[in-house]
Amino acid sequence: MSNLTLYSMPSSGNSYKVRLLLALLGRDYRHVSCETQSAELERAKAEGQLPLGKLPALHLGDGTILSESNAILWYLGAGSDWVPSDALTQAQMLGWMFFEQNRYEPVVAVRASLNTYPHLKDEATPEVMAKLLQEGHALLHLMEDHLQGRAWFAGASPSLADIALYAYTHTAGERGGFEMNRFPLINGWCARVAALPGYAGLFDHG
Amino acid sequence: MSNLTLYSMPSSGNSYKVRLLLALLGRDYRHVSCETQSAELERAKAEGQLPLGKLPALHLGDGTILSESNAILWYLGAGSDWVPSDALTQAQMLGWMFFEQNRYEPVVAVRASLNTYPHLKDEATPEVMAKLLQEGHALLHLMEDHLQGRAWFAGASPSLADIALYAYTHTAGERGGFEMNRFPLINGWCARVAALPGYAGLFDHG
Repeated sequence: MSNLTLYSMPSSGNSYKVRLLLALLGRDYRHVSCETQSAELERAKAEGQLPLGKLPALHLGDGTILSESNAILWYLGAGSDWVPSDALTQAQMLGWMFFEQNRYEPVVAVRASLNTYPHLKDEATPEVMAKLLQEGHALLHLMEDHLQGRAWFAGASPSLADIALYAYTHTAGERGGFEMNRFPLINGWCARVAALPGYAGLFDHG
Repeated sequence: MSNLTLYSMPSSGNSYKVRLLLALLGRDYRHVSCETQSAELERAKAEGQLPLGKLPALHLGDGTILSESNAILWYLGAGSDWVPSDALTQAQMLGWMFFEQNRYEPVVAVRASLNTYPHLKDEATPEVMAKLLQEGHALLHLMEDHLQGRAWFAGASPSLADIALYAYTHTAGERGGFEMNRFPLINGWCARVAALPGYAGLFDHG
């Protein structure tokens, strides 16, 4: 019996990455679904379940609440094969996770949101969408270059960096409108992630 | 004799946080200054010294280059008192560092840049500046609330989270135009950081 409760948004990559790691680790948890624009999300905020006002949030069962998707990955992955043991590979892994939150998510995830959430459609002007497309392709090129001669983003085996980057990358074509046929190494890496034992896709969760 | 070479931008908080930790740790390093809009920055990019195209970048001397300021902090701080030893406090520390890169830096640092870099002044429209002011104050309120009853952001002693958040916070009033008199707990925390042995301010470096 797990004491973990995850507040998460089913349509969000930041929430999905936590559920993906929980699936890969075979961990049980209680799930509280808070979709965007929902009464459940407003209730969770009003009740103080989301101290930083954002999803996902992991409740540990002793009153402790962890915020920030990639920090939750660190907590859940600690002591497992998903976190490399040496400081240098850890720093390389964290580097890609900070890249993901500072540069990638604000472009690739934002374009997907503007494309798919009806309440944001007024913000999705042609100028904004064109700028995000160009910026996203530049970031995907950095990732494609890094995967030259590498199977995973940090170290010789899959790590939290792969989970963090996979979340918004595997839907970047369909949801974000990015031209993913330009990035064969990224596509091969996505296929390797999806073949991992225990893998669960964005909408595979019960 | 240190083999570390830091490529950094003297006016940037992301670069400063690495120099602050190096000062606090008493570590020697070679510094390559690449100010914004400078020939040195263009040369560093052209020579491949900045694999992700951004500063700071730490060269370890064996061909390894680390990118992303907060990941560099992790590498330099590993094994020191600046990184807590348990996974939960590490995750809480990293949570604030991801908050800093995903939510805080894109608002508080960006407003300071628009305020102070002449080449960005066309982007600093009244609407943009007003929106960033409001968003920044909301984020500073989250930090002020968190410091209620706490001396440091994660755990009972100073950690990398304090260094990461301090970088853009201690100049948020003067450079960013934020109303810092509204945040007494943040001001007290800034004073505690500035009193740490080995502390060096933004423009104190040789």
